[in-house]
Amino acid sequence: MIVRDLNTARNSDRLVTTEGWDSTRLLLAGDGMGFSFHITRLFAGSTHEFEYKHHFESVYCVSGEGSIEDLATGQVHMIKPGVMYALDQHDRHRLSAKSELVMACCFNPPVTGQEVHRADGSYAPTEDA
Amino acid sequence: MIVRDLNTARNSDRLVTTEGWDSTRLLLAGDGMGFSFHITRLFAGSTHEFEYKHHFESVYCVSGEGSIEDLATGQVHMIKPGVMYALDQHDRHRLSAKSELVMACCFNPPVTGQEVHRADGSYAPTEDA
Repeated sequence: MIVRDLNTARNSDRLVTTEGWDSTRLLLAGDGMGFSFHITRLFAGSTHEFEYKHHFESVYCVSGEGSIEDLATGQVHMIKPGVMYALDQHDRHRLSAKSELVMACCFNPPVTGQEVHRADGSYAPTEDA
Repeated sequence: MIVRDLNTARNSDRLVTTEGWDSTRLLLAGDGMGFSFHITRLFAGSTHEFEYKHHFESVYCVSGEGSIEDLATGQVHMIKPGVMYALDQHDRHRLSAKSELVMACCFNPPVTGQEVHRADGSYAPTEDA
């Protein structure tokens, strides 16, 4: 059994900080669960474009308010606590945080911890990482 | 892109209610993500034994307080917001909710929605479901 506390993990190399957001990786590929699990904060007023071409991701809003725009269709969905979105089509999307968003994220395949966000908003596939 | 709201899903057949806990399945196997994602509530004062012999599960505490006991070792870990446990060894465990626990749960392989908890606290493997 693995037990980890977000507050402890945030003071370790599990915390990855990028402009406008940070992410604490509570589970990574090396944990052998077949998915990774992250708590991600998107800072108030920030906007981000992502496209995980090589991963499926689900994102559950724990706290905060914002929106997600599907960049293929232009459709905008409100985000508030209890809303989950799942990028089952590797959907290119724009996330906007009205207030700080705290999101619980699952990735399949699991993130290894070695990826960097590339200029196109994706992570490299695992074999390129 | 799939977008679902917990409050809407709780008024649908995504909500499964059992003695002492309920679970709202926001993602199931049929969604094709390779994992399932559930918001599970363990009612205040309830205690439960589980052993997912055929699944890996990670559980992140969104709210509430309680504890988890590893029934192989007797070790007890406190559960509070920000604590995650991952059953990487299909660990048999006892969960106790001091107050209502709200937990964000990921399963691999994904739950199909057809499983029932068996007397031994497990779900059947997918091929038996």
